[in-house]
Amino acid sequence: MYTLEQCSSLVEEQLKQLAIGAKTPAGLYEPVDYVMAAGGKRVRPVLALMACNLFVDDLTKSLMPAVALEVFHNFTLLHDDVMDNADVRRNRPTVHKRWNESTAILSGDAMMILAYRYMCRAQPEILPSLLDTFTRTALEVCEGQQYDMDFEQRTDVSIDEYLHMIRLKTAVLLAACLKTGAICGSANAANAESLYKFGISLGLTFQIQDDWLDVYAEPGVFGKAIGGDILSGKKTYLLLTAFEKADDRTREELSVLLNHQKMPGNEKISRVKVIYNQLGVSDTARQAMDGHYQQAMSHLREVILPDESRKVVLEKFAATLLKREK
Amino acid sequence: MYTLEQCSSLVEEQLKQLAIGAKTPAGLYEPVDYVMAAGGKRVRPVLALMACNLFVDDLTKSLMPAVALEVFHNFTLLHDDVMDNADVRRNRPTVHKRWNESTAILSGDAMMILAYRYMCRAQPEILPSLLDTFTRTALEVCEGQQYDMDFEQRTDVSIDEYLHMIRLKTAVLLAACLKTGAICGSANAANAESLYKFGISLGLTFQIQDDWLDVYAEPGVFGKAIGGDILSGKKTYLLLTAFEKADDRTREELSVLLNHQKMPGNEKISRVKVIYNQLGVSDTARQAMDGHYQQAMSHLREVILPDESRKVVLEKFAATLLKREK
Repeated sequence: MYTLEQCSSLVEEQLKQLAIGAKTPAGLYEPVDYVMAAGGKRVRPVLALMACNLFVDDLTKSLMPAVALEVFHNFTLLHDDVMDNADVRRNRPTVHKRWNESTAILSGDAMMILAYRYMCRAQPEILPSLLDTFTRTALEVCEGQQYDMDFEQRTDVSIDEYLHMIRLKTAVLLAACLKTGAICGSANAANAESLYKFGISLGLTFQIQDDWLDVYAEPGVFGKAIGGDILSGKKTYLLLTAFEKADDRTREELSVLLNHQKMPGNEKISRVKVIYNQLGVSDTARQAMDGHYQQAMSHLREVILPDESRKVVLEKFAATLLKREK
Repeated sequence: MYTLEQCSSLVEEQLKQLAIGAKTPAGLYEPVDYVMAAGGKRVRPVLALMACNLFVDDLTKSLMPAVALEVFHNFTLLHDDVMDNADVRRNRPTVHKRWNESTAILSGDAMMILAYRYMCRAQPEILPSLLDTFTRTALEVCEGQQYDMDFEQRTDVSIDEYLHMIRLKTAVLLAACLKTGAICGSANAANAESLYKFGISLGLTFQIQDDWLDVYAEPGVFGKAIGGDILSGKKTYLLLTAFEKADDRTREELSVLLNHQKMPGNEKISRVKVIYNQLGVSDTARQAMDGHYQQAMSHLREVILPDESRKVVLEKFAATLLKREK
């Protein structure tokens, strides 16, 4: 069984080999290399390799599909940053800041096409199945981004709608990575589907956790300023839970707080947290996290393997992502 | 043999069936339908069907790939309009004008994915070949667009560079459509390649003609104002030929004219045309058109068919596009 480190190395090595280098026109391909070199944990391709490894020892078949998914993921970040007008990504200027917006659009398009090029290097027998998963997922990610943008204009987004958006915007890709790995490992359809559902639950847990950490993480550990979502008025699991649970008066109080132009940041965060605590928002979120995590583990148990111990690496990795291990 | 009208009908019927309709989120899919409903001559999918028809009588296999190419083509127009900041396309507001820029980017992304979805409906035996052609072409189109944007910042673009850009930006897609149709018709590799090259030459002829018509077309016939390219300072075959042939003094005169802020439009056009005529630019362009057209016909002759008369519909269509028939 490959360890996390070995899976990461295989992915990094393959990505390095695929770096465009001196291909012309440079204006198109330099930003592609810039984006792909920004690093990151490569969670998605690693999940694909690990899923493949549940079923077979030779991970070769999963490498190009895994890399395709990572390229696709980075393409979505590139275009999302343009649509969100973000200046920084992974501590570096975004492509439209460093170059310009047309470059961000066009190089993103090229990355999307490269993702398909890499996916198409899979074995012909599994290609239709891989492409079906990939294309379906890619479209769902676009749908999720559209809902996310729609929600910005609304003040009545429910928790259910939020989770539906998160499912599309981020969870389906994690799920697709796991299913892709399974397909590359010649898993049967039931196992592939169980891994897909495991990925969905993983993704939902992860996002709720992300939202929770923004407000409740230990400052030293988190790596980002606490309460950034509150200051940006971002509709998170916590905020939407608060709105759902609050009476009209508290809802009004919360709205006024969030929209307050002059209040110092830390004061705004404290006051919002008071309301969150009154409403038990933290516990609600933690219960939701636990619920989805249990669902994830349940789906992972549905995967039938001759040797159950093969699940250990993937289980540990999921636990690490979800900060459920020391 | 299917006539042009029959091929067009098959394509329109298939496009109508694929219209997204009420799919959600509407914000993502309405612009897709808007773009696809804008019409146009559907040259590309028609070329694919006609190419298929050279080899077989049943065009079914070519329909989804043909439609995929049309969706891809419209995706490029959508993103190009954002990058070029164009207000109007086919006499209607562009998507970023009618909705907003984020929508144009995201719905474009969705269209690109839909193009792949439709392409993947091809028969498994020909799918790898179709995808290879499609992906390679899609990347080349991006490269062409990048060169086009690069050239805007330069004053020393040669005719060779221009043709290379045109080849990538527009000709390779026409070529890919013909080759795709051939593959769907089980053509052998040599015939498929000949049709590809026919498409390249067709595309180059078409673009030079486009450039020539902008300045020299009969006003009533053209449908667009004469000299629009001159007024916008667009680097066309005519302008670049003029710069290559002119002595330093005339080059200077031309630059000053093009950059002149206050001169009335029709005066600018007249004066530029005087220089063009002095340098024999129109004849040079017409010779280039003829040259590429002869190359196109030569490649079409390379296609070996049991029944040469099957080429008639395609020949006539090419002649119509290139205004070489009454």
